[in-house]
Amino acid sequence: MAVCEILSVGTEILLGDILNTNSRFLSRKLAEMGITVHRHTSVGDNPERLAQAVREAFSRSDIVIATGGLGPTPDDITREVCCREFGFELEFSSEQADKIKSYFERKGIAMAENNLRQAYIPKGGTVFENRNGTAPGMGMKKNGKCLVILPGPPYEMAPMFTQCAVPFLEEYRACTIVSHEVRTIGIGESSLAALTADLLEMENPTVAPYCKPGEALLRVSARARDAETAEELAKPVIDEIINRAGEYVYGVDANGIEESVVAALKERGLTLAAAESCTAGYIAKRITDIPGASAVFHCGMVTYSNDIKIKTLGVKKETIDNYGAVSEETAREMAAGVRRVSGADMGISVTGFAGPDADEPGKAPGLIFTALDAENFLICEKLETGRTDREYNRYVAASRALSLVLKYLKRQDVQ
Amino acid sequence: MAVCEILSVGTEILLGDILNTNSRFLSRKLAEMGITVHRHTSVGDNPERLAQAVREAFSRSDIVIATGGLGPTPDDITREVCCREFGFELEFSSEQADKIKSYFERKGIAMAENNLRQAYIPKGGTVFENRNGTAPGMGMKKNGKCLVILPGPPYEMAPMFTQCAVPFLEEYRACTIVSHEVRTIGIGESSLAALTADLLEMENPTVAPYCKPGEALLRVSARARDAETAEELAKPVIDEIINRAGEYVYGVDANGIEESVVAALKERGLTLAAAESCTAGYIAKRITDIPGASAVFHCGMVTYSNDIKIKTLGVKKETIDNYGAVSEETAREMAAGVRRVSGADMGISVTGFAGPDADEPGKAPGLIFTALDAENFLICEKLETGRTDREYNRYVAASRALSLVLKYLKRQDVQ
Repeated sequence: MAVCEILSVGTEILLGDILNTNSRFLSRKLAEMGITVHRHTSVGDNPERLAQAVREAFSRSDIVIATGGLGPTPDDITREVCCREFGFELEFSSEQADKIKSYFERKGIAMAENNLRQAYIPKGGTVFENRNGTAPGMGMKKNGKCLVILPGPPYEMAPMFTQCAVPFLEEYRACTIVSHEVRTIGIGESSLAALTADLLEMENPTVAPYCKPGEALLRVSARARDAETAEELAKPVIDEIINRAGEYVYGVDANGIEESVVAALKERGLTLAAAESCTAGYIAKRITDIPGASAVFHCGMVTYSNDIKIKTLGVKKETIDNYGAVSEETAREMAAGVRRVSGADMGISVTGFAGPDADEPGKAPGLIFTALDAENFLICEKLETGRTDREYNRYVAASRALSLVLKYLKRQDVQ
Repeated sequence: MAVCEILSVGTEILLGDILNTNSRFLSRKLAEMGITVHRHTSVGDNPERLAQAVREAFSRSDIVIATGGLGPTPDDITREVCCREFGFELEFSSEQADKIKSYFERKGIAMAENNLRQAYIPKGGTVFENRNGTAPGMGMKKNGKCLVILPGPPYEMAPMFTQCAVPFLEEYRACTIVSHEVRTIGIGESSLAALTADLLEMENPTVAPYCKPGEALLRVSARARDAETAEELAKPVIDEIINRAGEYVYGVDANGIEESVVAALKERGLTLAAAESCTAGYIAKRITDIPGASAVFHCGMVTYSNDIKIKTLGVKKETIDNYGAVSEETAREMAAGVRRVSGADMGISVTGFAGPDADEPGKAPGLIFTALDAENFLICEKLETGRTDREYNRYVAASRALSLVLKYLKRQDVQ
């Protein structure tokens, strides 16, 4: 198997001014091609130290991927140093120069003369077009070894890697790995693992449990010569997981429960409203993160105080007096209230103690009630996270309330 | 100046399963001590490759800080390999073993025998107590060089570095750098830079402009022998920035505008309510991210549809028909409406096109109106971000609406 090293160039990384996300992105993509990554290295904008790092990397590995330091200023040295160390000469390309000039023209910005440094490309190398900036990337091959140079900004680097570098590296591909995530809410990681214990022992595909705040997921990764075969290996295992844990599964490769909820409501032409106490807008915010959410979500009420719960949602004063604002009874009346006020098909609600403190003596932060109210239907769930982390508790409470929507829709679909 | 390399150990980093945030954290902290970082290296859980990386790092640098690979399983090799390469012998510490046992007892979890691997410490080294996990860290010094080993999980690593490793590295400290961020909203980065052009030329403290979504900030970094002297150098420059750009400044070292708004309202005993269309809960969510926000924020209305704007906030149908839902007029009536419904001292509102599309022909995503309504007071601001990025537009719109609160309070304070 081909061995690769990833080299990030930039003093700003060594000062801690920026977080190196490129190395992680490249590592993931290379793993999917069956290319082994043995090392990540970051060095500053210093020619000697960069040259040393390039020599070391090639002494150990087949492929070196360098990112960053392709800008127009004199401290951008990656192109010169890496090409020189790998034995490639740079030459001025008038074609590249024209592309850079027209990039600035399109943006309506004056181009500094400096920018033409980015028009130098390696003789005998391959140029990777930059659709999101001015610095082209480049690839070179020599004596079975390979050098790839990519710009530093992630929004330039990532699409260029996928579109240009992956085809350039095709000969090093050992396999294709496809991964899918089966995401669940309402079951713990260890219970999910117990339910799928035999699957976790498989070798291809592999099944591995992971945790995210308030949810557990299983990642199914299949390895084969091509993507189609890998997908065929993965599919029956994903189906089996859904077969066993279906009541908790909210999506495969879903981008959070909010995405699944909006899609499910759209499909059925139903609308939702939310009444939030401790999550205070987090449910509404997450639903409306999804473009087009306006088709299913018209109204949210953030009722942080008891007075506002009573005044805007019609929660009964006696309910709060008798059971407390953080109670199943209050959650129910909030859900019913927001459904009535909004005219939506269903109302969901959350009330709880977000933390760090509990606000009420004898109660713990992380105690949360969520409810869903619909025609002839009401569910309420109690949740105790045992944590004092405000962001965690709020996120998990919002997720749990959203999961009630899918629970309700599943029951409706069965009827 | 002492030169340091940071070595991260863990195959999960090379697979791209986790993002290496430790190196960034350590780089920042070392920069504040005047210790130069020349390289970040990540290697997997492989003894030969780790040993090679340790030897290389010490051949170039005075200090090596290794993180990760201190766990209880056989593939956790950092302790053994690093100590051996640096010439320190490990020995079993019954004191450490007792600490590990009592950690598990406190958590009420059975301890696996494996965990006692974490009780081995270097003979002649310094042990760093782990208050957030079981693996102690360690520091060793020899012939002017220094090895520091820290656990991988960031919530264990970061406090241990600050509490134990910083004092251990004190002799390498060249200086103390203190940094403060003056944060602004409502002025662009280039205008802010123009307003402070002479300050940006200073050498100590340095002043550098940065951009965050919807805001510009100036970072003032002063270098001196000790923190007190550095603070004395920074202070007049910070004061001068506030003097020049005060109307845009919302805080120094503030953790976002929401923190400044909650603090300012608390101080004055005033309350706020929010009516949100395109931000749809983001304002409420951000305000209530701040613990104790319940003292100043009781009520938020997410009015995504026109019907709900009319029904719950009392926006006039004619206003929407004549001017559109995304208009100054609608924003004003929303702010007034939520103040009336909630009984709060002031109401703020947002209506706009979040993107990626504009929903209305001829209108661009990123067109946003925000308003604030209070007794005998009304402001409305129009914003055109020129972007289609939904998250960006929503974040910036929420920030801008929150900034109206500080604007209002400043005028009240003057009167």
